[in-house]
Amino acid sequence: MKIEKLVVVGPGLIGGSFALALKSAGKVERVVGVGRSRENLAYALERGMIDEVANLPDAMNDAQLALIAVPVAQTSKVLATMVAHLESRTLITDAGSTKQDVVAAARRELGAHFPRFVPAHPIAGGERSGAQAARSDLFRGKNVVLTPLAETDHEAVDFVAEAWIATGAKVRQMLPEEHDRIFAAVSHLPHLLAFALVHYIAERDNAETLFDFAAGGFRDFTRIASSSSEMWRDIAIANRGTLLFEVENYRYELAKLQQLIEAGDASALHAFFSRAREAREEWLAGKSEQ
Amino acid sequence: MKIEKLVVVGPGLIGGSFALALKSAGKVERVVGVGRSRENLAYALERGMIDEVANLPDAMNDAQLALIAVPVAQTSKVLATMVAHLESRTLITDAGSTKQDVVAAARRELGAHFPRFVPAHPIAGGERSGAQAARSDLFRGKNVVLTPLAETDHEAVDFVAEAWIATGAKVRQMLPEEHDRIFAAVSHLPHLLAFALVHYIAERDNAETLFDFAAGGFRDFTRIASSSSEMWRDIAIANRGTLLFEVENYRYELAKLQQLIEAGDASALHAFFSRAREAREEWLAGKSEQ
Repeated sequence: MKIEKLVVVGPGLIGGSFALALKSAGKVERVVGVGRSRENLAYALERGMIDEVANLPDAMNDAQLALIAVPVAQTSKVLATMVAHLESRTLITDAGSTKQDVVAAARRELGAHFPRFVPAHPIAGGERSGAQAARSDLFRGKNVVLTPLAETDHEAVDFVAEAWIATGAKVRQMLPEEHDRIFAAVSHLPHLLAFALVHYIAERDNAETLFDFAAGGFRDFTRIASSSSEMWRDIAIANRGTLLFEVENYRYELAKLQQLIEAGDASALHAFFSRAREAREEWLAGKSEQ
Repeated sequence: MKIEKLVVVGPGLIGGSFALALKSAGKVERVVGVGRSRENLAYALERGMIDEVANLPDAMNDAQLALIAVPVAQTSKVLATMVAHLESRTLITDAGSTKQDVVAAARRELGAHFPRFVPAHPIAGGERSGAQAARSDLFRGKNVVLTPLAETDHEAVDFVAEAWIATGAKVRQMLPEEHDRIFAAVSHLPHLLAFALVHYIAERDNAETLFDFAAGGFRDFTRIASSSSEMWRDIAIANRGTLLFEVENYRYELAKLQQLIEAGDASALHAFFSRAREAREEWLAGKSEQ
């Protein structure tokens, strides 16, 4: 597997790291960057993540693979602009945190080219965004979830899988619906909870005093609330149904905890906290074995 | 300020670190450890955090300062055991995460000795507990909140403040009620939220799959859910009134977010997430200046 020409739409944290990783693995000849921010593109050029900058129609000329790494609500527009300039061999993939909406957009916009679109979601990142945060080892040891459909070309899936493997990632496959259910629980929900906590504290009359005494636990708990507001706005809307279900169930979990506290039920509280603590310790132990 | 004999009741993460810090600052001659776990006491001896082990009545003989560093629900019993063996010069302080309940217990148990009790809470720690997690620099640059009462001896407050300063901490003062309100919001609430999220995931039918795909954001968000269940059971009960108020308000904050998601209100969601993100970034910037 060697990519002659890779197009990265959005050479930010994810797109820039993908290009850097493939370059350092010697798996790509030339990377063309397409983006909204001149400053970010200039930085990506300077750091050697991309070799040239182009507008989207020009960039697609002769492209072997295009990665769309933009906030999910923009995927549809990118695909619509791309479609008239696609060559039959060009493969497309994305890095969106939601998959059902992206698949629906691709099906709608790409028409006959839809089988050559491989929906993907690298489970990596961080609260910093932009090319400045990109690094060649971002995906090392991380999961990348592909959610191909029945119509998707097998060769296209294999090619995209190989590209991700070349970045050091482990490739997993599932259905778009399954993907969106899993990540609503383990990623989208915690992000909302962290944003909500900081918002809640920031709106208090004594916010300054509260922040003054917030310490390490608060810092780590809220790290993900420093993530891109634009990206998370799009995710919240794209995965709205499942996410609302998760938030509602979580509020119910909190209500159970409130009842135990109100009743002063020491042994039930101890059991609740221990169950959580042990589940997390088991999870950490399993992760470190991987 | 030099402590001839320090008694540490509970030489774990906090108690052990206090002893280590004072030893490395040359501020203590002899440390006597009192505790429940033989294994922990043996480790604390071996690491030189404590110089000897004693039962509580014997330990108090000639003690200049006693630090009570146990889960808050045990404070009352420790004080009740201690009181018959106190010498008039002995100062007592604690490290409990809640202060109103500790102050009430001290007032009830210590009688005439109450003015020589200085309630304290070091804002440091971590999710690991026990002497094995102790380190001499745990308190460096961290806040320690003292909540003396009108009756508390000024000399006692000064002495305890100096001891904490010798560990590298910054000493702050406030009322016990104010302390419990602030930490309910910035510490106790996030701990409950993290425990509740892990518990929620662990109880799901597909928990194994969910944990399999949980990544770095989940890890940091839930770090505090690896904290001691016993300690947090006691805190939840000790600060119950304020904590219930916080959980209820936070659930209301989540309900607001649900409404925005349900309405698909992209601009309000963007504003909500941006407000949180900016407040956190401002807080981090302020912290790093300190």
